[in-house]
Amino acid sequence: MKEGSAFLNENAARIAQSMVDDAERLRVSVSTGPLGERLIDAGAKTLGSIEAGLRMAEAAMGGLGTVSLVMSATAERYPLNVEVRSSQPVIACLAAQYAGWNLSSGDYFAMGSGPVRALACVEPLFQTLTYREKADRTAVILETANPPPPAVVERVSKATGIAPENLTFIYAPTQSLAGAVQIVSRVLEVVLHKANDLKFPLDNIVDGAATAPVPAPHPDFLTAMGRTNDAIIYGGVAQLFVRGSAEDARELAEKIPSGTSRDHGRPFAEIFKHFKGDFYAIDPLLFSPAEILVTAIDTGDTFRAGRRDLVMLERCLG
Amino acid sequence: MKEGSAFLNENAARIAQSMVDDAERLRVSVSTGPLGERLIDAGAKTLGSIEAGLRMAEAAMGGLGTVSLVMSATAERYPLNVEVRSSQPVIACLAAQYAGWNLSSGDYFAMGSGPVRALACVEPLFQTLTYREKADRTAVILETANPPPPAVVERVSKATGIAPENLTFIYAPTQSLAGAVQIVSRVLEVVLHKANDLKFPLDNIVDGAATAPVPAPHPDFLTAMGRTNDAIIYGGVAQLFVRGSAEDARELAEKIPSGTSRDHGRPFAEIFKHFKGDFYAIDPLLFSPAEILVTAIDTGDTFRAGRRDLVMLERCLG
Amino acid sequence: MKEGSAFLNENAARIAQSMVDDAERLRVSVSTGPLGERLIDAGAKTLGSIEAGLRMAEAAMGGLGTVSLVMSATAERYPLNVEVRSSQPVIACLAAQYAGWNLSSGDYFAMGSGPVRALACVEPLFQTLTYREKADRTAVILETANPPPPAVVERVSKATGIAPENLTFIYAPTQSLAGAVQIVSRVLEVVLHKANDLKFPLDNIVDGAATAPVPAPHPDFLTAMGRTNDAIIYGGVAQLFVRGSAEDARELAEKIPSGTSRDHGRPFAEIFKHFKGDFYAIDPLLFSPAEILVTAIDTGDTFRAGRRDLVMLERCLG
Repeated sequence: MKEGSAFLNENAARIAQSMVDDAERLRVSVSTGPLGERLIDAGAKTLGSIEAGLRMAEAAMGGLGTVSLVMSATAERYPLNVEVRSSQPVIACLAAQYAGWNLSSGDYFAMGSGPVRALACVEPLFQTLTYREKADRTAVILETANPPPPAVVERVSKATGIAPENLTFIYAPTQSLAGAVQIVSRVLEVVLHKANDLKFPLDNIVDGAATAPVPAPHPDFLTAMGRTNDAIIYGGVAQLFVRGSAEDARELAEKIPSGTSRDHGRPFAEIFKHFKGDFYAIDPLLFSPAEILVTAIDTGDTFRAGRRDLVMLERCLG
Repeated sequence: MKEGSAFLNENAARIAQSMVDDAERLRVSVSTGPLGERLIDAGAKTLGSIEAGLRMAEAAMGGLGTVSLVMSATAERYPLNVEVRSSQPVIACLAAQYAGWNLSSGDYFAMGSGPVRALACVEPLFQTLTYREKADRTAVILETANPPPPAVVERVSKATGIAPENLTFIYAPTQSLAGAVQIVSRVLEVVLHKANDLKFPLDNIVDGAATAPVPAPHPDFLTAMGRTNDAIIYGGVAQLFVRGSAEDARELAEKIPSGTSRDHGRPFAEIFKHFKGDFYAIDPLLFSPAEILVTAIDTGDTFRAGRRDLVMLERCLG
Repeated sequence: MKEGSAFLNENAARIAQSMVDDAERLRVSVSTGPLGERLIDAGAKTLGSIEAGLRMAEAAMGGLGTVSLVMSATAERYPLNVEVRSSQPVIACLAAQYAGWNLSSGDYFAMGSGPVRALACVEPLFQTLTYREKADRTAVILETANPPPPAVVERVSKATGIAPENLTFIYAPTQSLAGAVQIVSRVLEVVLHKANDLKFPLDNIVDGAATAPVPAPHPDFLTAMGRTNDAIIYGGVAQLFVRGSAEDARELAEKIPSGTSRDHGRPFAEIFKHFKGDFYAIDPLLFSPAEILVTAIDTGDTFRAGRRDLVMLERCLG
């Protein structure tokens, strides 16, 4: 994980290759696109699997995070939970996992995720993030039902200097099993993203872990998207370990939970409809787990805020 | 995991080899039988271990499932639990893990488990299951205190076309640590088996996870067998992800829990005695976890039924 | 794991090498000491990480134990917990992990941990333990902020017959993230140690698992040390599987919990101050988890004793 190395992108490419090798057991289909790019359909025309979603999540984090499922008998209505952990949460989540690269083109809409973003560095976020890589191959993770059109493949190729035949696009729609798993695995990433929005110095975030229930996939896009968000907003719990003052840690803890948002308290799909599908009209402070612990390692204090809301979870997730 | 490949059987053979390599730390003993077959005693004349039981369970599933232990401080009386997960539950559990191949001969009683069953395909179940393999070597998992006699080794060799020297038999009695662990790891398999008994179309079962407490081994066979069953019947929780209608998913959920059985409500050992040791007189609907969630991925509905019974667990497991 | 092999020490050396390879992502710094020994600073002048602490713990157990973090939403105030398991707990915990080798010299204070102890065998404990290894290289784990001075490196080299250039010293102070994690990962080891103090025959201990909350590191040494102890004393839960009579198992269970100690009931830092920093004046029976299950595998009985104390945990850990 040296600056300027290919560490995360090589990890993503390696995990993508493991998905190709295990295509049958993961129920994914592998093909070659018009420009020679490799396509892994993990839930659009194929059924996909939970396991495929876990691999997508680990690829998206550039191998810098662990993503696992825990089946817990004591968790009442939602025994199946995803757990995400990284000792390099800023790089794993923000420089890699965050779906921040707009790869839309014409009718095609997709936000690119994965360490490929630390090659292209076209997002404003990379004015804050200093981590950069150079790589010969990588994998791009997309939350969509359609493979990228040639124009998008070309754009990624040009922005990264990687030939299309060395690019793998792994895609799964929100409505699929793999989609649900890889999206809810963003429960730690949303904390990092909100911390950045709140101007908390990213260099001070040194370790983190988070968990959220795996929502049932839903065939309706809006409902499916709602559930993946609700699983985090009403069911997510995260802990960050940060440097700096206790006061800053406390302030961060108080501001992180989704309950601080004006839009909190309704299923996400309802909120989305209320704003007539204008994603950017929704309060960005909503995208956050229900509960947070922030541990200030320089002072030894831990600050807790927010609470899981099982009633809302039941209303949202079924 | 291609149809006709050796994927699961190679995995089983590889895991068996890992047990040979780690024999000391697993406390298993390795020997060669009269026909050249390899024998791994994981709990009969050796003490064995929990770790040996986990490997037996993974070998039995042909490497298509993950089996892990979780030690949870919030789980009250039974902090140590096994978790099983597979994104190919039908193949992992039914074509491999289910102990469905009657390998008894004369005085010798044993039911064979493992992907070897998808080579031999001598059980009626393989009229329903279409998955087949071809392999040069494999491992057979047996819940017994005795190595298979030559007649049984020959039968396996003939049915699979694998020479005895390429067969490994891993055995541990119900009363051993490894036995207890590998048997309770069947908490997901019993769901699949009951779903099949209920004529739920197996092709519609796409993913699954389950958990159950690890019962203390007991030196008495009947008590030990009772506990491994009770751990699942009164303490098991499972979630299936299925295709098809919500109605079918709901019906499956309502019928799966052990509580639907006429024989539910007493320790398994008592039931067994009540039927004078006639296993087949026991209601087959009893062999199932206490709690189930069935998620219909085509409709987005999750149906829950049954409930863990901590009072019965305490009465049964001690 | 053959007697006289290099199994545990090779594992420790291999894990140390993985820390060198992953130095950036673990935030550890690697250097060469004056005698050619390799030094890994995992939390003194570097920040270190939770992941570094997990690797230190696995190295300390000579690869014979699994150490993992679980982030559990149902665990209320302390969602992040370490879980430790070993099917060879006596060797993993006592012959390796226990920090029993006094490597102090002049002003330098450190207790050596790791399988290196089964090479040197200079502690009285090795009159009880029979396990021995021979090795060409190994790693020594130290809970300290300072690398060992040449005199200490020489002492280790002489006692083990390993040249300094084949020794790696991995160190992290109690106040660091890695320190907190590797120390609280001793939650199973303290059970073994107390069982030995209670004269329970070690050969009868065959398997074990334990869990404890990860305490927030604290910059003050005394507070940090207090927390790592309190996390185990008031929050630890363990299960042992033992041979022998039910009576012996019951007696062990009744004596293990920290609550049996006369010094129980106050934060460890207060106790330490009360005894004016004389560690050896503290009741050794205090060093133990809050809750224990002892399963007698020869009789099938499980004995439970002690209880986690969430009120004390909150008072101690914040």
